[in-house]
Amino acid sequence: MNRAATQRQTDRRAEILDAAQSCFARTGFHQTSMQQICAAAGMSPGNLYRYFPSKEAIIAGIAERDRAEVADNLSQLNPSADFFAVLTDLARHYFAERTDEQVGMCLEITMESRRNPEIARIHHAFNADVKAWLIAILRQAAERGEISRDINFENVTAMLMVIVDGVWSQRVSDPAFDPKSLLPLFMDVTRHMLLNPPKNDRHSEEKSR
Amino acid sequence: MNRAATQRQTDRRAEILDAAQSCFARTGFHQTSMQQICAAAGMSPGNLYRYFPSKEAIIAGIAERDRAEVADNLSQLNPSADFFAVLTDLARHYFAERTDEQVGMCLEITMESRRNPEIARIHHAFNADVKAWLIAILRQAAERGEISRDINFENVTAMLMVIVDGVWSQRVSDPAFDPKSLLPLFMDVTRHMLLNPPKNDRHSEEKSR
Repeated sequence: MNRAATQRQTDRRAEILDAAQSCFARTGFHQTSMQQICAAAGMSPGNLYRYFPSKEAIIAGIAERDRAEVADNLSQLNPSADFFAVLTDLARHYFAERTDEQVGMCLEITMESRRNPEIARIHHAFNADVKAWLIAILRQAAERGEISRDINFENVTAMLMVIVDGVWSQRVSDPAFDPKSLLPLFMDVTRHMLLNPPKNDRHSEEKSR
Repeated sequence: MNRAATQRQTDRRAEILDAAQSCFARTGFHQTSMQQICAAAGMSPGNLYRYFPSKEAIIAGIAERDRAEVADNLSQLNPSADFFAVLTDLARHYFAERTDEQVGMCLEITMESRRNPEIARIHHAFNADVKAWLIAILRQAAERGEISRDINFENVTAMLMVIVDGVWSQRVSDPAFDPKSLLPLFMDVTRHMLLNPPKNDRHSEEKSR
């Protein structure tokens, strides 16, 4: 296949994922039919099935695309920039700049992972990747002396991921919730976690907590 | 209706909600049929419909029961106990003592609120109630001088709710996640938020953030 044909196929896949994402956001995975996705994408079932053989394959495609976007975001971080400035930008993006549709989709995938082994595999691997990336970024910052070397890298990373997930959940649960308004408090809490690790939760401690 | 009959009806409702909750946890709201709930509850459809006319009514019943349990928990707090000890107990309960089924159910209700106006009404009201209760508890602690009076009560409460939601989400997303291991860091972060509010996010500030 030549380059133009490959690009057309990539574009078409992206269009299908976009169309499916809108359908899922409106009616959820289980109440969305392949027919509805075909209609939203403006494609015949025969054509759509050439790209994605099942609804599960589309959900997996959305999850994989999300993963690639996050990987891309994190790989573009400027390693020599001020660490807390980078973190502020990341937080603003993940708290507030993601659309309700994107946030809803991520939460739907999380819930679907409770029931669907294939989605669980993709989702757990994605979550583990994000965790590993964050730990690596924190270790680099600790080596440069921008944050404490004594932080419990696992737990601080888990807390950062907890907060992002929770912001998304509150965006659904509280229509008046403004994630941007939490940014100053979030950055203050994060500075505290990264600069002043509590004595009972430190990297150097070997004891179980 | 006499007291014994009322109690029997209350018990029967609770049994139906328990049976439905197990079904929903396994297969989700939309893939669970009323027939499956009847089978799990050991009741005929005719009998079950006397208690709950629809699946939505059962979901609403579960959400209301959850709300009552939280209200009960919070109303039993000892107002003269050490505030941070109370908070540690609450955190342990909501992070770790709730079962996977209870956590899954809460997340399912959150997601369902995106699509179902009646569930949205119950869920948003519940979330607003929890927020109001937490703000009231924090204000009392501030009046007693146990925490700073300068905290931004709205934002600190939102952050606490974000963290509980996020812990539940990570319980689903990371099979190795141990919520108990986050308690020391959570309490450290919370002490920091409640005792040392950042200058750019204070109660007394009238300026927009």
